[in-house]
Amino acid sequence: MNKHSSVGLVEKKFFHFAHPPNEMVFECGKKLGPLTLAYETYGELNRDKTNAVLVLHALTGDSHAAGYYSENDNKPGWWDLMIGPGKGIDTNKYFVICSNVLGGCRGSTGPSSIDPDTGRPYSLNFPAITIGDMVQAQKYLIQHLGIEQLLAVVGGSMGGMQALEWSVRFPDMVRAAIPIATTTKHSSMAIAFNEVARQAIMKDPNWNNGDYYENHHPSHGQAVARMIGHITYLSDTALKIKFGRTHQKETKFTYNMETDFQVGEYLAYQGQKFVDRFDANSLLYLTKASDHFELADKYGQGSLAEAFSHARCKYLVVSFTSDWLYPTRQSRTMVQAMKKNNLYVNFCEILIDYGHDSFLVENPRLFSLISGFLDKEHRSITKQGENNAL
Amino acid sequence: MNKHSSVGLVEKKFFHFAHPPNEMVFECGKKLGPLTLAYETYGELNRDKTNAVLVLHALTGDSHAAGYYSENDNKPGWWDLMIGPGKGIDTNKYFVICSNVLGGCRGSTGPSSIDPDTGRPYSLNFPAITIGDMVQAQKYLIQHLGIEQLLAVVGGSMGGMQALEWSVRFPDMVRAAIPIATTTKHSSMAIAFNEVARQAIMKDPNWNNGDYYENHHPSHGQAVARMIGHITYLSDTALKIKFGRTHQKETKFTYNMETDFQVGEYLAYQGQKFVDRFDANSLLYLTKASDHFELADKYGQGSLAEAFSHARCKYLVVSFTSDWLYPTRQSRTMVQAMKKNNLYVNFCEILIDYGHDSFLVENPRLFSLISGFLDKEHRSITKQGENNAL
Repeated sequence: MNKHSSVGLVEKKFFHFAHPPNEMVFECGKKLGPLTLAYETYGELNRDKTNAVLVLHALTGDSHAAGYYSENDNKPGWWDLMIGPGKGIDTNKYFVICSNVLGGCRGSTGPSSIDPDTGRPYSLNFPAITIGDMVQAQKYLIQHLGIEQLLAVVGGSMGGMQALEWSVRFPDMVRAAIPIATTTKHSSMAIAFNEVARQAIMKDPNWNNGDYYENHHPSHGQAVARMIGHITYLSDTALKIKFGRTHQKETKFTYNMETDFQVGEYLAYQGQKFVDRFDANSLLYLTKASDHFELADKYGQGSLAEAFSHARCKYLVVSFTSDWLYPTRQSRTMVQAMKKNNLYVNFCEILIDYGHDSFLVENPRLFSLISGFLDKEHRSITKQGENNAL
Repeated sequence: MNKHSSVGLVEKKFFHFAHPPNEMVFECGKKLGPLTLAYETYGELNRDKTNAVLVLHALTGDSHAAGYYSENDNKPGWWDLMIGPGKGIDTNKYFVICSNVLGGCRGSTGPSSIDPDTGRPYSLNFPAITIGDMVQAQKYLIQHLGIEQLLAVVGGSMGGMQALEWSVRFPDMVRAAIPIATTTKHSSMAIAFNEVARQAIMKDPNWNNGDYYENHHPSHGQAVARMIGHITYLSDTALKIKFGRTHQKETKFTYNMETDFQVGEYLAYQGQKFVDRFDANSLLYLTKASDHFELADKYGQGSLAEAFSHARCKYLVVSFTSDWLYPTRQSRTMVQAMKKNNLYVNFCEILIDYGHDSFLVENPRLFSLISGFLDKEHRSITKQGENNAL
């Protein structure tokens, strides 16, 4: 374990909330509460509370974005490459917050949580979740932490959708937003892959209409769902570099139904790992939330430029050349809509082979982009403070 | 039913064969026999037997490439747009043959066929199938029909692989080859999608290690497998044009686990339709055959140029701009290897949005390319014949 440039030991905290008392109103109209968000923080909140950065995780991520839970913990948080002292999101300068999304299964209230009325998991009685609901819950957390305005909201993929929603929904609370490898709405193909993933789970007899917590889980379907998703997170080239047509065994074609290719073994491993750490119903809820995210419809009556007219923050938009799930043209579309509102926008398409998941790998270009953008915005506050003091 | 430009009523025929007597030796080393190929023919074989065109079907196709089975039949063969009087493959000029591949489930011997030794389906006791085995069986059929040399072998996708195999394996029997939307080897990503499709089937409890014929079939897994495949046969743009983000109902987000998007409903329909017409084990066998097809390894000790040094035919290679499963760069690679051997090669990348399945849709450019290429080759024989007669 190399903890030299790490935030070190961290702990998962829990925020219990209800607005109005005892419930939160979801966008679907249902009410539920009190609710819990699992979250972690790294770095120190400054006196003026102007250095808070909210990190937003992707589909199956969680609040554990950086650091280690114990001395013996071999695996750091999911964005430890980016978050830490001297890193892209520098914990010497910023107070970093990351919470598990509502509807998730990593400490925040979701379909696998116990319904106090029945003593059993909510299962499909849990209200449908939207990106807006996730952001609403995060807002309660940020207010609970005594922060009036975030320096920045940062996230990739579904995390980027949350960043966009934050910037449009709560413009006074966001100075800067960094949506990475994301979109203002899923393409038909992105929806198609999610539909198949959901079908893989729901066709598993063990799914049992979502009521499986006391029996066998729909592990087979869930593994297949993950395998499908995993391919879409990588690129043709990434797979070629990593696996090519390498075979499992010397004999190449085993002439039976075993997995002959390393890429098959790798996907099977990813599928199984996912089953062990994630709840199938949460995957259904969160993919639905992503599929239905449509910023123009929600905030601009169909016009994306109109939707961004609500925003007041500065943007850093990042896409990756090899991301075919949320291709660069979708980022360009949002950048154009931002610019129509004379918003300050930095846009960068990074040349990288790794596919949609490029934001999760070592990437000096992305690190320096984020670092520079945050630093500039942070300095502008300090300068503003000094000017005000004169 | 519009039969005006159709070959009209056709019938499925069966060819029973065994070489050596009572068996065929498969590339895996196993022997089996006698075997059956289901096939159809359209047009008339000329006196010199120089006008035969062998059409090779894709993964889940069959011998029914053109025409109708009865007056009440509403659905013509799978390539009726291309094959018929005055069409791209003109049945007024050519004798067209199409057979169901070995290992299939549409009349040719495959895993769902009855093993005479047990009186039960072969299931996984059926020998592993290769593209080479398919072509070997087709060769017996062609010889049975009294044809020494084919004017052309034509096919898309897995049919294109067979066309390539034919041209390299039996160079004296092929004057021209038209591989369409195909590759000399699957990319890592193409293998990955097939691995997931196979896992979807094999993880279905009803699959029962392939022994399901007398019980419930692995329909759930098979439907998911087809949905995955179907997405890869289309393009992002094709899906956008066809479905976009159109919802099933006016309410858009139903806030439950129902399919909200038309693309989801469409994929579910495709999945179900496939379960009704295809055998799950055949899909396993045929995707394995495609994944293991590697022309350079098999015929060139790793060199594609060396592999094509065995060929003597003329080639028309066709790719589609929107085919991301077998992208144009794979066609370019094969064209370069052909040209290194000074073979006559026409190559065309067709600008079309429909994705990998573009060869199955109305496409005047593809029709005229094939028609012109065949016509030229056919005329050259006639001319040769005239010259010989002088």
